[in-house]
Amino acid sequence: MATTTAKQPLLESFKQLLIGPRLHTADAPHQTIGKAIGLAVFASDALSSTAYATDEIIIVLFMAGTGALAFSLPVAIGIITLLAIVTISYEQTIHAYPNGGGAYIVARDNLGEAPAQTAGAALLTDYILTVAVSISSGVAQITSAFPELYPWRVWIALGIILFMTLVNLRGVKESGMTFSIPTYFFLIVTLFTIGFGFFRYFTGTLGAVTGVEVMKYETTQALSLFLILRAFSSGCTALTGVEAISNGITAFKEPSSRNAGITLIWMSTILSVMFFGMTFLARHTGASASETETIFSQIARTLYGLDHPMYLILLGATTLILIMAANTAYADFPRLGALQAGDGFLPKQLTYRGSRLVFTYGIVTLAGFASLLIIVFGARTTALIPLYAIGVFLSFTISQTGMAVRWWKSSKLKPGEEIQQLGSMLRYDPRWRIKLVINSFGAAATFVVMIVFAVTKFAHGAWIVVLLIPALVFVFYRIHHHYKDLAADLSLDSYGAPARIRRHRVIVPVSGVHRGTMRALHYARSVSDDVTAVHVAIDPNDEQRIQNKWQKWGDGVRLQVVQSPYRLLHEPLLEYIRCIAAQRQTSEVLTVVVPEFVPARAWHNLLHMQTAFLLRLGLLGLKDVVITEIPYHVGEDR
Amino acid sequence: MATTTAKQPLLESFKQLLIGPRLHTADAPHQTIGKAIGLAVFASDALSSTAYATDEIIIVLFMAGTGALAFSLPVAIGIITLLAIVTISYEQTIHAYPNGGGAYIVARDNLGEAPAQTAGAALLTDYILTVAVSISSGVAQITSAFPELYPWRVWIALGIILFMTLVNLRGVKESGMTFSIPTYFFLIVTLFTIGFGFFRYFTGTLGAVTGVEVMKYETTQALSLFLILRAFSSGCTALTGVEAISNGITAFKEPSSRNAGITLIWMSTILSVMFFGMTFLARHTGASASETETIFSQIARTLYGLDHPMYLILLGATTLILIMAANTAYADFPRLGALQAGDGFLPKQLTYRGSRLVFTYGIVTLAGFASLLIIVFGARTTALIPLYAIGVFLSFTISQTGMAVRWWKSSKLKPGEEIQQLGSMLRYDPRWRIKLVINSFGAAATFVVMIVFAVTKFAHGAWIVVLLIPALVFVFYRIHHHYKDLAADLSLDSYGAPARIRRHRVIVPVSGVHRGTMRALHYARSVSDDVTAVHVAIDPNDEQRIQNKWQKWGDGVRLQVVQSPYRLLHEPLLEYIRCIAAQRQTSEVLTVVVPEFVPARAWHNLLHMQTAFLLRLGLLGLKDVVITEIPYHVGEDR
Repeated sequence: MATTTAKQPLLESFKQLLIGPRLHTADAPHQTIGKAIGLAVFASDALSSTAYATDEIIIVLFMAGTGALAFSLPVAIGIITLLAIVTISYEQTIHAYPNGGGAYIVARDNLGEAPAQTAGAALLTDYILTVAVSISSGVAQITSAFPELYPWRVWIALGIILFMTLVNLRGVKESGMTFSIPTYFFLIVTLFTIGFGFFRYFTGTLGAVTGVEVMKYETTQALSLFLILRAFSSGCTALTGVEAISNGITAFKEPSSRNAGITLIWMSTILSVMFFGMTFLARHTGASASETETIFSQIARTLYGLDHPMYLILLGATTLILIMAANTAYADFPRLGALQAGDGFLPKQLTYRGSRLVFTYGIVTLAGFASLLIIVFGARTTALIPLYAIGVFLSFTISQTGMAVRWWKSSKLKPGEEIQQLGSMLRYDPRWRIKLVINSFGAAATFVVMIVFAVTKFAHGAWIVVLLIPALVFVFYRIHHHYKDLAADLSLDSYGAPARIRRHRVIVPVSGVHRGTMRALHYARSVSDDVTAVHVAIDPNDEQRIQNKWQKWGDGVRLQVVQSPYRLLHEPLLEYIRCIAAQRQTSEVLTVVVPEFVPARAWHNLLHMQTAFLLRLGLLGLKDVVITEIPYHVGEDR
Repeated sequence: MATTTAKQPLLESFKQLLIGPRLHTADAPHQTIGKAIGLAVFASDALSSTAYATDEIIIVLFMAGTGALAFSLPVAIGIITLLAIVTISYEQTIHAYPNGGGAYIVARDNLGEAPAQTAGAALLTDYILTVAVSISSGVAQITSAFPELYPWRVWIALGIILFMTLVNLRGVKESGMTFSIPTYFFLIVTLFTIGFGFFRYFTGTLGAVTGVEVMKYETTQALSLFLILRAFSSGCTALTGVEAISNGITAFKEPSSRNAGITLIWMSTILSVMFFGMTFLARHTGASASETETIFSQIARTLYGLDHPMYLILLGATTLILIMAANTAYADFPRLGALQAGDGFLPKQLTYRGSRLVFTYGIVTLAGFASLLIIVFGARTTALIPLYAIGVFLSFTISQTGMAVRWWKSSKLKPGEEIQQLGSMLRYDPRWRIKLVINSFGAAATFVVMIVFAVTKFAHGAWIVVLLIPALVFVFYRIHHHYKDLAADLSLDSYGAPARIRRHRVIVPVSGVHRGTMRALHYARSVSDDVTAVHVAIDPNDEQRIQNKWQKWGDGVRLQVVQSPYRLLHEPLLEYIRCIAAQRQTSEVLTVVVPEFVPARAWHNLLHMQTAFLLRLGLLGLKDVVITEIPYHVGEDR
């Protein structure tokens, strides 16, 4: 009988080397940031989507041939209009929820549990996709510049995820230079490129893209409304990340709602400019769909030439912002996970802040699922896109609906009256009519877009998400059920004083008569006078030998020998204990004292039958049987 | 706090479906067999090697071009001579060891522990290679006939291993039809083919092999003595399995040694005829080295034509005998493993007979390592051959040396005097001189061959075995050391009566105040009056809340709150217990009572921090701390 040895100081040292020394709970940061840094912190997800949104529009339209690419600009303008609607809607949320108004909180306050859990499922799914898509696209920028790295893209992507996971387990301060440098660097380089492109366009020197390894489709398609709507859906990934600011309002300097709102509008404006600009340049340079080269790369080398440093600078800046975008999911996913876990819909572990004050379990879960997606989809952005953004638009819809309901409820209140909700304070708002109209319109628009998504991208992978979100909600409710049951079970509300223990039987399984057994026996006798030793005899000739030895050493304790004709070890023992447990009365306690070898070295465990382990596992299945382990440290007395 | 639920009746049912119902210890078989069936049972390993031995000679010689193939017959004759020497040597062993005289037993009796363990390591290694080589060669016969299966050869090989493992876990009766049919079928078909081939040769109608996809070498070689010796080494795989009968003498009818000896000579004679015959036909049909077609297949289709049923019959019979050969390793490996484990040089589990009376652990270990070899070497026989047969020849050498020493020792005895050894009875033998000469010559010959192996095949993979065998012997001694220490540790030889327990301290970790805690507390107080409850406070504000609740429910028991500023759970608890354990006196016992949730469903474990599990692991590392688990079955009262 044996089990594993404990203590892992080496492991702990290695962990601290990777993620840094433990942080004190009192060290939790409380600093706030201004608008300029706020933009850097929260905008990377939204802005970075310009690096692939245009590509995805062109890849869909190109199925109907080069002529269909004329629709890329109208589609982009449609998406920018939608962005304006969503921005105005969210601006209202930010003012109504100064403590943070993510879709989950808004839905929980105004619509109830089920819509909140749906929003949660949608967002968690999408955060995972944000990591997978952003990293895949970032790697695509790298392999556009260095095509020889293309076969290694999955490994590169997984390496980046591993690195980001470590960085986030160390804990990232959501402020300062770390975010500002890459975001503003990307912003300046991209806006300069767009400006330079427009200058060339208006001076008639824009040039045309050449030498692209054009994408090969399995089937070509006729240009149809369906195809244009599908291009629109794919391009709508540009809107992902717009909600980020509404989650992080408390991070802003006072007046935080006002500052956050202004930052949101700035972000949307910049995003619109960049997205329109890049789509415009793609259209007029004649950029094409390609599996191996991104649109950014095609435009940049047409404008600057492949050898010009600006080519690598733009692609480098884009890669960097994409990695930063993935990083925002590393903040959002664990935060939302902890929120849902706190409400009892996800495993409680997600609320646990690790040694570096971050939500360790959430970070690791996110990294695990994102890596899985990268592997399954071969780090191909285009393959992941059909799954993406449905979740975000579902959460947009739920959130805007929640806001609309909120304005309606607020209209029923008297001025000055206040109702405390979980996530906010509900007050009468004199301008509720216009606000209700704006949020309702936002909800309707995002709902329609979501349906368009689900329909146009269904066969290409969207069905996975359409099935996954309800499945997740189901699982959340199962988890909730378990926690509620547990709480009811453990409640002391109707707890009476326990019955007095009248009899305490102790059973000591003995594999042989030796020091380990003697120690267990000694302990057992100190706890109760009612001790039985049990031996399982595999060899029928064994019984007499052990009886004789017991005569000498057993100190008068009763020895029961159980025959095991089928050479089983823990099973007959369990059966014997089960029998005795079944016979006892309510005031009787049954303890099994298991002598357990603890070898000095872990590999020694391989040299022993793990009977004690299996016995313990079996005993845990019996009701009201107490298990006492007497560890015997082999070789430590010498 | 939680742990896994127990009971696996479904798993047990599935296991019984696969390997059959449990067998009673009294059902162990005791029947014996005659010479004809004995040949079938023990010869498959030796005879089957003709299916690849010729191939391996030709593959090596062919490196020096077609002309070098002229040396194939002389090499084969050399190998047959060696076979005769080994056979005569082993015939003597059989008579000296009527209870079974494998190399391990002979070495243990006559040479001591270290040579015995070396022989054991060599043989275990080679049994694993027997499975890998035989199955790979069997699959090569299949893919020779059905080239479209070639890409699937690793999967086919693994499938066969899985099937054989299940069959052997069910338990094979080593007798009767199961062995006789394939062995005699192969014997008849092969001897007929050889006879037919010689008939065609002498009538001048033998024909020549055409259309072989000839093997491509990375480098060609000049014909040299070294190359011929290497061909000889590779061909010596034909001798593997000759020792099988000496392990299984007790299976024969009385007079068992005589019957076994005659069977051995028969087996070697048949093997010589088949090996010579096939090499002769290969030479005269001009068969070539090929990666995708075996020599058997080349000869058979030249003799019969590809469409003739005899072609498939020969290849089928060969595949079958190769699988039977692998099967003998499934008998030998677990038996030797159990023998070494019984002597304390391998994990004791190997002596354990499972529910079907077979050595379960040995079978599974063999299957695991053989599968690994198949995967690593891509089920390519030629790649495995350099590793093969070194172990067998090392064991030959050790065994014959042991026999020589034995005759020398026996010469010192008076006639009629007897010494009981572990594996046999040592007596004076009047013919000791000639027997000493024969075994010494056998030892010398096999030793020289082994050195030739190691040198000529070193760079091609033999180095793995040359390093592996000493490494294994080292591990065997480490294991032996552990068991000896353990026995000394547990011995009751100088055991005095234990000190009377003066104080019994009980510590109850409480995560919160609930029914699970109450039950643990109730039990703790029934065991001792000296109870302390300990709570780890992660949230600094938590302390007051739990103190208040404890006031109401704690029933006067002392509550110690341990602050955990780094949000660790089991670590501060362990530290606290370690402190208390360090302060106590010798007559003091310390028990930690751990309340442990047992969820109704296994997946619920995912919803809890595994604190109880980690705490228990940590506590097992502390000396003389008793761990008591109070299982709390969640949801079973409702």
